[in-house]
Amino acid sequence: MKTTTLKLVTIIAEDDIEARLVRDLKELGVKGYTIVNVRGEGLHGARDNAWEGENIRLETLVSSELADKLFEFLHSTYFPRYLMVVYMENVEVIRAEKFL
Amino acid sequence: MKTTTLKLVTIIAEDDIEARLVRDLKELGVKGYTIVNVRGEGLHGARDNAWEGENIRLETLVSSELADKLFEFLHSTYFPRYLMVVYMENVEVIRAEKFL
Amino acid sequence: MKTTTLKLVTIIAEDDIEARLVRDLKELGVKGYTIVNVRGEGLHGARDNAWEGENIRLETLVSSELADKLFEFLHSTYFPRYLMVVYMENVEVIRAEKFL
Repeated sequence: MKTTTLKLVTIIAEDDIEARLVRDLKELGVKGYTIVNVRGEGLHGARDNAWEGENIRLETLVSSELADKLFEFLHSTYFPRYLMVVYMENVEVIRAEKFL
Repeated sequence: MKTTTLKLVTIIAEDDIEARLVRDLKELGVKGYTIVNVRGEGLHGARDNAWEGENIRLETLVSSELADKLFEFLHSTYFPRYLMVVYMENVEVIRAEKFL
Repeated sequence: MKTTTLKLVTIIAEDDIEARLVRDLKELGVKGYTIVNVRGEGLHGARDNAWEGENIRLETLVSSELADKLFEFLHSTYFPRYLMVVYMENVEVIRAEKFL
């Protein structure tokens, strides 16, 4: 069966920016995503409790080009102001045309 | 330490098919899985609200052969009838014999 | 934009060892993690219900060296006593210096 390689982009962020983040991702071309609440700690180690407690983990499947665009956008627009972890990886997807 | 490369298969689906999906995966040879509820949107963009709200995200570690078998099965049996996102990726696993 | 390849290490374990596991990971050098509760089954198939019900899924982004260290530690210290699934994969991270 034919599969397509896409980028799975994961964003871990504070839950109070969820609405803004989703709106921005959609404007950049994201068509689907899932969100789950997570707990955790640690962006700033012992010096900062901001990440203790409820955060969100958002995942979206996008083309390699859109993944790069998201990375540039998040790095320039969100990273100066918000605590956030962003990473991507390759995954093999069934019926990938839905996400492109 | 010796590790083994397995496929991590992720299935995002509507929560009302969970019982059937788990039963089918087990019949195909899946021995373990985790499920978390997720929210999200987007399989059909603005035309369809079916994915708004609660969905499940199921993950299972399987051999490459079983991953291919799951992909074929889901593509032929579930995709014609259900909204679903399915992807796989390679991961390095400790004590992998449990999953094979 | 410059990205860095890190290891995403995922640990699925019974929820009653969460506090101990987090403490041990921090002592080994982990600076950040997320946890979500998951349900599932399957480490021991039909012979064992220990994994039925609530488990945790912990994820942490670490250097390749620390990932190997975590694998060795978990394999030698936790695997003999606890039900646990551990795997890692490569991901591309923005602003990775925070995790090293």
